[in-house]
Parts: sequence; structure tokens; C-alpha cells
Amino acid sequence: MARIDLNSDLGESLGAWSMGDDAAMLRVVSSANVACGFHAGDPAGILTTLKAAAANGVTVGAHVSYPDLTGFGRRNMDVASADLIADVIYQIGALKGLAAAAGVPVRYVKPHGALYNTIAHDARQGNDVITAMLEIDPSLILVALAGSPLIPLARERGLRVVAEAFADRAYTPQGTLVSRREKGAVLHDPEAVAQRMLRLVEEGVVEAIDGSLTRVQADSICVHGDSPGAVDMAREVRRRLEQAGVAIKSFADAA
Amino acid sequence: MARIDLNSDLGESLGAWSMGDDAAMLRVVSSANVACGFHAGDPAGILTTLKAAAANGVTVGAHVSYPDLTGFGRRNMDVASADLIADVIYQIGALKGLAAAAGVPVRYVKPHGALYNTIAHDARQGNDVITAMLEIDPSLILVALAGSPLIPLARERGLRVVAEAFADRAYTPQGTLVSRREKGAVLHDPEAVAQRMLRLVEEGVVEAIDGSLTRVQADSICVHGDSPGAVDMAREVRRRLEQAGVAIKSFADAA
Amino acid sequence: MARIDLNSDLGESLGAWSMGDDAAMLRVVSSANVACGFHAGDPAGILTTLKAAAANGVTVGAHVSYPDLTGFGRRNMDVASADLIADVIYQIGALKGLAAAAGVPVRYVKPHGALYNTIAHDARQGNDVITAMLEIDPSLILVALAGSPLIPLARERGLRVVAEAFADRAYTPQGTLVSRREKGAVLHDPEAVAQRMLRLVEEGVVEAIDGSLTRVQADSICVHGDSPGAVDMAREVRRRLEQAGVAIKSFADAA
Amino acid sequence: MARIDLNSDLGESLGAWSMGDDAAMLRVVSSANVACGFHAGDPAGILTTLKAAAANGVTVGAHVSYPDLTGFGRRNMDVASADLIADVIYQIGALKGLAAAAGVPVRYVKPHGALYNTIAHDARQGNDVITAMLEIDPSLILVALAGSPLIPLARERGLRVVAEAFADRAYTPQGTLVSRREKGAVLHDPEAVAQRMLRLVEEGVVEAIDGSLTRVQADSICVHGDSPGAVDMAREVRRRLEQAGVAIKSFADAA
Repeated sequence: MARIDLNSDLGESLGAWSMGDDAAMLRVVSSANVACGFHAGDPAGILTTLKAAAANGVTVGAHVSYPDLTGFGRRNMDVASADLIADVIYQIGALKGLAAAAGVPVRYVKPHGALYNTIAHDARQGNDVITAMLEIDPSLILVALAGSPLIPLARERGLRVVAEAFADRAYTPQGTLVSRREKGAVLHDPEAVAQRMLRLVEEGVVEAIDGSLTRVQADSICVHGDSPGAVDMAREVRRRLEQAGVAIKSFADAA
Repeated sequence: MARIDLNSDLGESLGAWSMGDDAAMLRVVSSANVACGFHAGDPAGILTTLKAAAANGVTVGAHVSYPDLTGFGRRNMDVASADLIADVIYQIGALKGLAAAAGVPVRYVKPHGALYNTIAHDARQGNDVITAMLEIDPSLILVALAGSPLIPLARERGLRVVAEAFADRAYTPQGTLVSRREKGAVLHDPEAVAQRMLRLVEEGVVEAIDGSLTRVQADSICVHGDSPGAVDMAREVRRRLEQAGVAIKSFADAA
Repeated sequence: MARIDLNSDLGESLGAWSMGDDAAMLRVVSSANVACGFHAGDPAGILTTLKAAAANGVTVGAHVSYPDLTGFGRRNMDVASADLIADVIYQIGALKGLAAAAGVPVRYVKPHGALYNTIAHDARQGNDVITAMLEIDPSLILVALAGSPLIPLARERGLRVVAEAFADRAYTPQGTLVSRREKGAVLHDPEAVAQRMLRLVEEGVVEAIDGSLTRVQADSICVHGDSPGAVDMAREVRRRLEQAGVAIKSFADAA
Repeated sequence: MARIDLNSDLGESLGAWSMGDDAAMLRVVSSANVACGFHAGDPAGILTTLKAAAANGVTVGAHVSYPDLTGFGRRNMDVASADLIADVIYQIGALKGLAAAAGVPVRYVKPHGALYNTIAHDARQGNDVITAMLEIDPSLILVALAGSPLIPLARERGLRVVAEAFADRAYTPQGTLVSRREKGAVLHDPEAVAQRMLRLVEEGVVEAIDGSLTRVQADSICVHGDSPGAVDMAREVRRRLEQAGVAIKSFADAA
């Protein structure tokens, strides 16, 4: 039976500011990328999200970031290796602590925003993130962009790696994401998106922006929950996949 | 054979700003209260201190604080229970993560600054810190002010507690600290301080500010390292105790 | 002809997190209390709000706070005078800078949250805020809680002071606010609230929570915009006042 | 009579952490680049430095930075124009506020660290800083690296610009700074440095790292004060210049 993981960014509220609908998304996804306080998330809010994840049986990962609340971790920062390694360990450790209080383990790490994009191609910072994971807990799984050179790099160094696709993003014929700056980079039709993801799971291919088919190997699909429309799209992806007999299950359970 | 623990606040540098002489103090103390990033300490600097503690065989504790870098955690803050509990768990977790990377366990928690002073008498915030410790790791030991009602409170809730005395502080006849606002509250003569601490260890008494003897039950002595004079005083305390046959050992090893 | 000022807290978004509907509220109020970055507001977001205030002819004030983003400035902090004075000057100066870029002057200061509540009765911190205002710009007007001893204190030291009432809050028979912890402290019926405020303007009285009439001298009314319901209530207050011939005008224009 | 300005980075302490010897440097320099809170400096500490600058008759400039306390503003950040413009205005405004309280005007802007290095060649961010200055106060003078394309750019847009040289840095034959990563980039002999700066003032040339003479047009010389040795070097530069009859005067007074 086919299976896939659905993941989403959660725990991104900050004190008086709320973001996203964590309660709704925790009924859709099998994996929660939980903010660790560097781009979003205050400890009490993170803990609330972790308890809700535990109650919903959703697997938890650390959504680590550059230290940049104002920029929401979306700005490139030239962080030296000693700092980046320690920053990542600090965040994973903080989330492990709160997760222990919530009664749920932290199973994986998915870097956020600018850090995610940078390590998809920058081996120095990629190695720093890998080093951090190996030093705090080598059983952690790294979630990385499908097709990225980070994937073989992390595997060579002994980490288990899961590749992810993005439900609402257009792909190039080479299997990479179309840049957000280009027209058509973000998809908006829930049914079309759900159908694309079903094909990805069943056939391992996505229709690229030029109409050709491109191979994308992914064990997880990232869906968003930062607007009512986004939640609806995520629900439609899940509904369509389950209707076709695909099991929605965390990759962590497959080990 | 008599024994006592010496503890000090370490890891309090922040990026380009240095504070204290951690290398020197790690050769004097048996326990290091390591900053967790809320009043001081950046992750890379904390990790450096933890590795040095590991190399020196010094026991590590989490020096948790209110979130207040500018005020160095010395300002009272009226933090709600849900926030305080999660803030403390977050800090302990972050330190545990970095300590795992350094190959040393986090054995105890010593709150810092205004939080330390507040929970010495405020049961609500005291219970919040206790709850945080129980939720992340009930084997953690709480270091608290000798004579404080926090000590029985934490013991009732199941925590192991260690009472501490302050080497360079004057005591009232009731066995509490003389307020820093009063004359004579802080002691400056290394030899006199060392002699006081020896008497504390051997007889369980301290000469109070009025000349009377007051009983102080302590398993740890806090020494400071934030100035060359402070390091010298700490060294003198250790030298005098060892000369008299007192073993300097972490309380954590005695369990 | 009767006149009154309507003020509201604006500019409280932070980077990726939005709060309130500044565009809507700038069509309702005559004065905007603009966040200065210590409890809310990033510089680019503050500048956007200031430009919108300028475009709407709304008077601008500095909504200064304790330094506490996570707690949204709602937590009491024991800030020393030298720090509090400099923190307030820094915030007013930063807002003046952004306001100059937006082509609008900063005319008044309204402290936020815990600082507002504290200085309503704490003369030490109240004097610190007054000192800060006098040092940076003695022509600034202080907006303070109607009935507070801060009002005569600030006037004695040479500041112009404007008293404000809260549209959606219940009053005690003594003319003070009913604590939010008590039942009935917050009012929810827009029409009743609007009617109360009309009576306040026309007769200088408010019906207290026990049904008695209490005298409240106010030149400004604070309305909120942090939810669609709050915006509707603010609109209703304005509509009702204007219908009765009350002019909605900033107190600053009356000088 | 020949004249030159000496400038130095000041106000870089942060709460409990001190940095540099502002009191000593304010007796050496004619211009103080004062931190604005984004890479260093808390409001109370900044105010203390500004009052000391005023007492010493030292001209004040805003040492604006990327928002990065942990990295001391030394890490490149990809800040969008709207954010960078507003961040710079916010910092200048905050410093103007504190400077008004200290009774001294803010006359110039010298960007700090990574921002300084980036705008020396990056026209987009350079234009953002220029825009910020024009929007808050077009009479502000920009201090920029001698030889940088930022200088003509800022002049074209109407700013007055002052070029600066670095006392303790080696120069390439092209008149640019030798990268800190290369051997010999930083000079350590106070007498040799002082003699180089005298030649710079008198002849407009510096001996480059290959022994050739390179033309450097500078109206200000940056000296450091972050160590006792640095303070001594700064004193020696001043002494040597004054001995040769060069007046040490702020460029701002020459307008």
C-alpha cells in the first residue's frame, strides 16, 4: 500500500501575535515542523502546539532557523560555522525539552526559510547543520528538498534523510522549484494540487511548468496552513490521497 | 571526611562581549552554573564553556533566568505561570542539548538573579520553576538559598534540593543574607571569607553581621569570578578548605 | 460645540505577524498611539502606519513600553530610573525619526500596557517618564488615565497632560477602572458603549458598575481595533458622537 | 594649517557587559561613532556616552547597523530595502533623541561592520542608507570608506560625504584595504602607524603593502579603542599629528 507523509510549519505564533491554525493543521498532517524560537515561537506557545501534536498523534520535528524574529528567518545571514552549529543544537535542545514536557519525542529536523534554502546548495552551512544534528542526537532525521545535494551529503555523514516535495509549488523540468519571483511559481487550485501530489506518490513524477514530466523522489509533502485557503488546500491533498488508498503516515514510523 | 561543593556562574559572555574568566574558575569550582541565553550566553559561547567544564570534570547546572539580556536577568518581571514554566523548560532543554554535544550531563538547576531572589520567597513562581523541572527531568537537583521556604516546597514535590551559602555575603542573625543595599553586605577580605566558609563546613555556623553565630545548613558555596579579585577570593576559599582536609566535590556525585 | 479626541493603539504588527486593522482604525480615530518597537512594531511596519496616519490627518503619539516583545509589554518590570528614562527617550526619538520620514510630527506620549498601569500610581516610574519627555521635547503632551495622580504630577513638572477614558471598560463608583479580573470589567455592546461615551462628553459622567454616576474628566477616549468587533465598536462610538454634534478632533490641535 | 578628524566607535557596551574605554577615547578623538542599539549599546549606556561626548566637545555620529546583537553587526544580512531604510531611520532617530537629552546634535552617520563593508560596493544597500539619511535629515554627513563608489553615489543624491582612512590597516597599491584574512592586514606599531597617518594628512599618500605609494583622500581617520593597546595607538596618532602642527578637528565644524 502506498504511503506518504504530510508536513507543515506549526508553532509560529509569538506571544500576542498568532499565526496559522495549528489546531486545524494537526488534523491534516502527519508531521509538525515546530518553531524553536529563533524565527518564531515563544516557549509557552511552542509547548501548547507540542501538546496538541501529541494529542493528535502527529510526529514532531525541529524547525530550526537563523536568529531573526523580525525577518521571520527569511533573510540570508552569513553565520560562522561555530555559531551555526551551536545555534542549531540550542534550538533542537530547547524543543526536545518542551517536547519531553509534552510527552512526545523530537524525531526530525527541518531547517526553516533562508537556512533551508541556503543549505540546499551551500555545503559549508549544510555540513554545519549535519554536525549539529550528529552532536546532539544522531538518530534525528533530516528533512531536505528533494533533489538537493544536501541529501547525499547528509547520508554520507550517517544521517537518515527524507526528501520532501512542496504541494503548492511549480517545478522546473530539472525537478527543482520554480523561483517565487517567477510567474506561476505558486499554485492555487486545491484540486489540481491534490491531483499532482497523488501522481507524485503513485508515479514519482510531477508535471513541470513547461508541461514535461519530471521525476521527484519524495517521502514527505509540505503543505501550508497560514491562511484559510491554505488549510483548505492541505485538507484537499489529504482527502484526495486517502481516497486513492494512500496512507498518510509519518516517515519516522517507517524506520 | 568533610566535603562541600563550590559553584559559580559561568558562560555569561555574549557574542563580542566577554564576562568573567571561565577558564580560571573551572579550575576552582566543582559545579558550574551555566547561562542559558535568557540573561546571558550565546549558544557558541555556552558550548565552549560546557566543553571546558567537561574537560575539567566540573558538574554542570542550568542557570535559568527571566528573559532580559539588557537587564542581565536582575530585574523583577511579573511572568505568568504558563510562560515561566515554559521559559524554564526551554532553557534547560537548550542547555541539555549543548551539554550533550559537549559530552556532559546537566545535573541541576540554579535560577539566576531576580528569579532566584523572587522564588526564595514567592511560592507561585517557585512552584512554576519546580513544575518545569519535574516536567523536563525529575532527576534534576534544585540549588536554592539556604533557609529559604523554597527548599521544603521543592522537596515536598519530589525534587532533590541542595542549599547554598554565599562566600562573600554577610548574614543576619536569622541566617538570611544582609541586603546588598546595607553597609557591610558584601565581604572583601579573601582570608576572612575563606575562614568563614571553613567554619560553615566544619560547624554549620556563620558569624552574623552583629557578631552572633547563626546556623546555616549548606551543601554548596557560591563563589564569584567576575573580577580578578573575585577569582582570587574563590581560589583562597578552595585552598583553605582543602588545607583543612575538606574535599571539594559536586553534590551531584553524592547521590 | 463639544469636541473629543478618539485614540487607538496602532503599528503593533511585527514583521510577519500582523495585528489590528490600522487602515480601518485610521478612518475612525483622531489620534494614533504608535508602537515604538519595545512591545511591538518593527521599523518598516511603524513607518507604514505613520505614513497612513499622515495621509488620514491623524495626530501621532509615541506608545512607549517596557522592553518586552514576548510579553507584549504587559508584564510589570522593575526597571531602574536611569534605564527607564533612557528607554523612553530612545523610543520617542526612534518614532520621531520615522515620523519625520513620514512627514508628520510626534505630538504626544501614551505609555503602553504594564508601564501605563504602573505609572498611574507609581510616582518613581511616573517621574522617570516625565523626565524622559522633558529631556527630549518638553512640548510633548502626556496622555494619562483620567483621575490618576500622574496627571497633577506631570503638570507640576511643566508637561501638558490630557486625561483619557476607556470606551469599553466599566468604572467603579470612585471613577477608576474595574479590574479586568472582575466580572463585567469589559463592555461588549457597541450601542451601549457609544451612548456612555456621549454622556461622558456631554455631562462629564459615566454610569459606574453599581449604577451610580461617577464624574470622569477626559479629553480623549481610547477605542480598540484588535478585532473586527472592536473596530465596529469604535466606529459606533464615532458615529454616535458625531450624530450628536460632537466634533472628533485631536487634543493636540486645541493648544 | 593642516587639519584632520579622528573618529572612533563608542557606546558599544551593553547592560552588564562593557566594551572599550569611552572615557579615554573621548579625550583622543574629535568624532564619536555612537552605537544605536542594533549591534551594541543599550539606551542608558548610549546616553552616558553621549553626555561624555558633549562634555568633551566631541562631535557625534550615528553608528547604524544590521539588527544583530549576537553577531555584533558583523554578519552579512540580506535585508530588503523597505526594512533597511526604516531600520536606519529608526536608529538615527533613537540616537537623535538621546543626543537631544545630552545636549549635543547628531551630525553624521557612519554605518557599522557588515553594513559598512557591504555598502562600500553594493549600490542597492548603499542607496537605502542614503535614502534613510535624506528622509530623516538631509543635513547629515555620511562617513564612507575612502575610494568607495559609495562616495560619488551619495554626493549625487545630495549628501555631504566625508572619506575616512583606517589608521591600523594596510592598503593595497590600489588604495583599498588589505583584507583582514591576509597576513599583514592589521598594523600594530603605534609609532609607524602615527607616522603613516601624518604622511596621509600632509601628502595624501599611504605606503601600500608592496612598498609603493598609493593616493588616499581622507578627511577623517578611524582609530580603535577596544583594548589598552588600541587606546595607546590612538593617543600616539593624535600626539604625532599635533606635534607636526596638524589640528585635530571634526569635519562637521568645517562646513
